[in-house]
Amino acid sequence: MRYQLYYWPNIQGRGEYVRLALEDAGASYDDEARHGTGMSAMMRMMDEKRGTPPFAPPFLKAGKLVIGQTANILLYLGARHQLAPKTEAGRLWVHQLQLTVTDLVLEVHDSHHPLGPTLYYEDQRAPAKRRSEEFWKERVPKYLGYFERLVRANGGAYVTGRRISYVDLSLFQIVAGLRYAFPKRMQAFEPEIPRLVELHDRVAVRPNIKAYLASDRRIPFNEEGIFRRYKALDL
Amino acid sequence: MRYQLYYWPNIQGRGEYVRLALEDAGASYDDEARHGTGMSAMMRMMDEKRGTPPFAPPFLKAGKLVIGQTANILLYLGARHQLAPKTEAGRLWVHQLQLTVTDLVLEVHDSHHPLGPTLYYEDQRAPAKRRSEEFWKERVPKYLGYFERLVRANGGAYVTGRRISYVDLSLFQIVAGLRYAFPKRMQAFEPEIPRLVELHDRVAVRPNIKAYLASDRRIPFNEEGIFRRYKALDL
Repeated sequence: MRYQLYYWPNIQGRGEYVRLALEDAGASYDDEARHGTGMSAMMRMMDEKRGTPPFAPPFLKAGKLVIGQTANILLYLGARHQLAPKTEAGRLWVHQLQLTVTDLVLEVHDSHHPLGPTLYYEDQRAPAKRRSEEFWKERVPKYLGYFERLVRANGGAYVTGRRISYVDLSLFQIVAGLRYAFPKRMQAFEPEIPRLVELHDRVAVRPNIKAYLASDRRIPFNEEGIFRRYKALDL
Repeated sequence: MRYQLYYWPNIQGRGEYVRLALEDAGASYDDEARHGTGMSAMMRMMDEKRGTPPFAPPFLKAGKLVIGQTANILLYLGARHQLAPKTEAGRLWVHQLQLTVTDLVLEVHDSHHPLGPTLYYEDQRAPAKRRSEEFWKERVPKYLGYFERLVRANGGAYVTGRRISYVDLSLFQIVAGLRYAFPKRMQAFEPEIPRLVELHDRVAVRPNIKAYLASDRRIPFNEEGIFRRYKALDL
């Protein structure tokens, strides 16, 4: 099946977690909003009266299904593309971890948008600075320390052991994104999470991911996305 | 099967969405951290080296399974207690809606904690006021307008039509919580969402929910939870 992914065309954002899964799986898909009239089709689908209109991008069209919410899309794709365990217990565990990544992603976003997503960063510089401090003092160590412990406990290459799952692809993105947005803070922090850094490197050289990262399908990080490089928020 | 729910003992918080599902289903469960040594057991389970230690409460013990993340717990319970559709498409849809409720719940929390969860409200009063303004101006209309449209389009009693699902129980809690935390703002806003208000009332009189709400198993709203009544943030 060929999928249609609907997401904002100029950012990695939350769509990137879906792109990474589709790319690693070698699935065929169109990144709809990046060409032709895809963007207006995307807006139309959210306005639909009938059926299952998504609240926000990203969403994935898979045949007749329209699936929204990043972690929900990955739940669906994981089962079909060997990116999740086969047992119910395993699937729930990987999904639980992905939902924890989801929480972290929102906290990354809030580091530059503490007063909410509808105001500009320029209108919330001072609170953003305070929130970023708190984010690095309390939250990054808590979240990344948790995933680091899981990789260590499993003694494996990936967060659930020897086999990759979609949550590993997402953790790759977290490490890459934090390096982009907070280069100094992240450099200082990386010695605390050696196994996550190795996991990042291991994902980066997977053939499909490597090809994707080198292609123009990978949108560069920028200051419209989740991970934004604002000097004032770094060290 | 008898479940064990692990959640902070003094607040409704995120655990409440799980409690409402367990109660409506008439499932037997223990609210572990509310008695005996349950609280220290809960902390211990998050520190486990092996297995599937959850990142944060709530989590549910179901036999050998330990399931974390509110929406993930509901995904599991929904399938077992007729609180979700049987088809894969239906299950993904209800889960997608629950993840949208999850996003809203976090925005409710951030209305009084814009600088992050680790600082006190008293240390972020001014940004909380700004964020609450934005929350009611932009976000509440967007989220609740979305769910209102779904109920209207389905012409049904519940958000997916005639049959209840766990997301309806969560929407009940959203309406009840916003009424508690922002009584004036919510009163002014309710004419915009007549069907959600009806849905709230319909859930409130379901026999198991009615009995639960009247029992001491229902922890009262308070200023340690997600929905907090701070006069300065209301109108």
